[in-house]
Amino acid sequence: MDLHDLTRTLHSKSDTKIVMLVADGLGGLPLEPGGMTELETARTPNLDALARRGISGLSIPVKPGITPGSGPGHLALFGYDPLKYLIGRGALEATGIGFELGPNDVAARCNFCTLDAAGHIIDRRAGRIDSQQSAPLAIRLRQVRIPGVEIFVEPVKEHRFVVVFRAAGLGGNVLDTDPQATGVPPLRPVATDEASRRTAEIADEFIRQATKLLAGEKKANGLTMRGFCARPNLPSYEEVYGLRAAAIAVYPMYKGLARLVGMEIVGKSPGISAQTLDEQLAVLEQNWASYDFFFIHFKYTDSTGEDGNFAAKVQRIEELDKAMPRVTALNPDVLIVTGDHSTPSFLRSHSWHGVPTLLVSNCCRYDGCQEFNERNCLRGGLGQFEAKHLMTLALANAGRLAKFGA
Amino acid sequence: MDLHDLTRTLHSKSDTKIVMLVADGLGGLPLEPGGMTELETARTPNLDALARRGISGLSIPVKPGITPGSGPGHLALFGYDPLKYLIGRGALEATGIGFELGPNDVAARCNFCTLDAAGHIIDRRAGRIDSQQSAPLAIRLRQVRIPGVEIFVEPVKEHRFVVVFRAAGLGGNVLDTDPQATGVPPLRPVATDEASRRTAEIADEFIRQATKLLAGEKKANGLTMRGFCARPNLPSYEEVYGLRAAAIAVYPMYKGLARLVGMEIVGKSPGISAQTLDEQLAVLEQNWASYDFFFIHFKYTDSTGEDGNFAAKVQRIEELDKAMPRVTALNPDVLIVTGDHSTPSFLRSHSWHGVPTLLVSNCCRYDGCQEFNERNCLRGGLGQFEAKHLMTLALANAGRLAKFGA
Repeated sequence: MDLHDLTRTLHSKSDTKIVMLVADGLGGLPLEPGGMTELETARTPNLDALARRGISGLSIPVKPGITPGSGPGHLALFGYDPLKYLIGRGALEATGIGFELGPNDVAARCNFCTLDAAGHIIDRRAGRIDSQQSAPLAIRLRQVRIPGVEIFVEPVKEHRFVVVFRAAGLGGNVLDTDPQATGVPPLRPVATDEASRRTAEIADEFIRQATKLLAGEKKANGLTMRGFCARPNLPSYEEVYGLRAAAIAVYPMYKGLARLVGMEIVGKSPGISAQTLDEQLAVLEQNWASYDFFFIHFKYTDSTGEDGNFAAKVQRIEELDKAMPRVTALNPDVLIVTGDHSTPSFLRSHSWHGVPTLLVSNCCRYDGCQEFNERNCLRGGLGQFEAKHLMTLALANAGRLAKFGA
Repeated sequence: MDLHDLTRTLHSKSDTKIVMLVADGLGGLPLEPGGMTELETARTPNLDALARRGISGLSIPVKPGITPGSGPGHLALFGYDPLKYLIGRGALEATGIGFELGPNDVAARCNFCTLDAAGHIIDRRAGRIDSQQSAPLAIRLRQVRIPGVEIFVEPVKEHRFVVVFRAAGLGGNVLDTDPQATGVPPLRPVATDEASRRTAEIADEFIRQATKLLAGEKKANGLTMRGFCARPNLPSYEEVYGLRAAAIAVYPMYKGLARLVGMEIVGKSPGISAQTLDEQLAVLEQNWASYDFFFIHFKYTDSTGEDGNFAAKVQRIEELDKAMPRVTALNPDVLIVTGDHSTPSFLRSHSWHGVPTLLVSNCCRYDGCQEFNERNCLRGGLGQFEAKHLMTLALANAGRLAKFGA
């Protein structure tokens, strides 16, 4: 029996509202031993006031010591066990550029590479060709024609692009063609199950035609395909939680992840996302009556951390703090502030460290935390917990879960 | 490998004694933000002294955010994973009224309902007919005769009663006949596996005869059957822990749950339960030499919580505290005080909040807790832990578990 087996049978009707505000990469580290983290440094009077009313803790995105990407990090926050719901890289890459995968799609991430006259790989990333040069090449590959298959080719960054094959019944289990070595030719695509044989044949033909179209290019005269993946089949928020859920996100990746669990993407106007936090809050206010659950994604705590810019991350946290009164003015029954993982500017990357997490409701048990930051969360009433349990806690605090067993 | 695979092979002989005192629904909430819970309000000098000697923590009955009924709550305390050992509603209802299910029994909870002339349900609960009217009707149904089957009909409360079919080889997997709607007839019983086909036939015939016997009744002229369930098959305390266990409980539900794991029910005299806490302690003293493990159930911390009576719950906790010296006078090697779940009077219901838990032995590691209550337990040495681990800790502290691996 997994968590969704429980919530699926226990969720009950209510008109309560839940807001989950995800500050990407929120958790941090000090620059000096014993010093203060970004969140400890930031002036956050509004979050601190919420910490005094609510219950705090540190969420472990996947397992202790495991650093998640955005996919597993968000799935866990959404209550989907990130070790059960594995999203292939192809699907994640497609999602990240805003490509909406359909039920008949198989996606793969591709790299341009450099081949020698014998067809052996000289450079697996085509000399990290820049995006301006590579994008027209990716678009050129849209000329590939394979009967019975719709093909999408989308540029990504530098040597990367995405290919999606669309046809009924395609399996997504095809091995990578990247040999992870130079001096050898790319591998042929190999299916690992019966349902994926046709996919492998299509990929093989795609590579044949694409290589012709690239002939004569100096850097990018070949390609490899990796992370083949059919559209992940996740149960929806409506089904497992009984929630009508809305996502208010700026970047395609987070909208895509939200869409995978059945959230509706709401924006400034149909098809146009809010761009600033202020705009995101306006969208929240406009849609308040229409949904039970709101996922708000704030990107910049992560990007400043990735840049190694401690001061900028502090500033972004303070920007977030200033926005809180507009959220609390709506009187959500449950308000959660958390992150999908830590991104300490000290490390300039995602990390495994516990993520400061705060839950406010009228029936959370107070824990004496006075501020919202890593050292208070460590002593908080939520303890250190796997992020996948957060949604169950949200539902419980919102009065949306019946008793288990008599 | 589950917990019982470990304890089953590791338990060792000893003459140590373990007492587990379960104050039902012990955990609470403050009435005002930042205020004190029932347990924090109560004067508990004896429990506080034990907290200074022992180790404290908060137990999570099932998983974070999941509110358990009495069944899963107690099974977890007894060391049985409540998500593995699911007890059907029929068995739990029978257990709750003191019916001792045998190995050839299938139980179902039944509702009287009101049918119109066409046999369609008008009221699924027969107008919530009162117990004085419904009990004689349930007893009338004892006239049903089906060859080869022994049938038991027991009144419960209001529109509810329990039916048990006894015959060799009956399966318990039959779907509910309650259509969960009015304006339609009750469903026919349908078996979901081969072993339960005969059970469904018996239920069908029972309903046919019962409906005849109820003809002419104004409110309760029909019935529905739900939660069909064979006797749960749980490994015994003797087998998994090597413990001769005694249960000292007032209410049938808790005696029934204890019986399911092989505890013996001990009382004032054969067949007569102790009624007050004083009487329960007398029973504990009388039986001290005969058992290794004692489960004592104290109901009133839950019932006062369910009533929303904060002051009465405080008083019941103080009553429990006054009883502690009589328990400690027996010098148990391990003394545990806990609850099966929280029942905050603020919520007037069971809840998901962590349950204050205390373990005292001569080899627990002291944690500096000064009082026994929610805020001390949050900082305690047991941390926040799933209740199913408590029995393993009890056995370890009692010197009853050998080393795992060489």
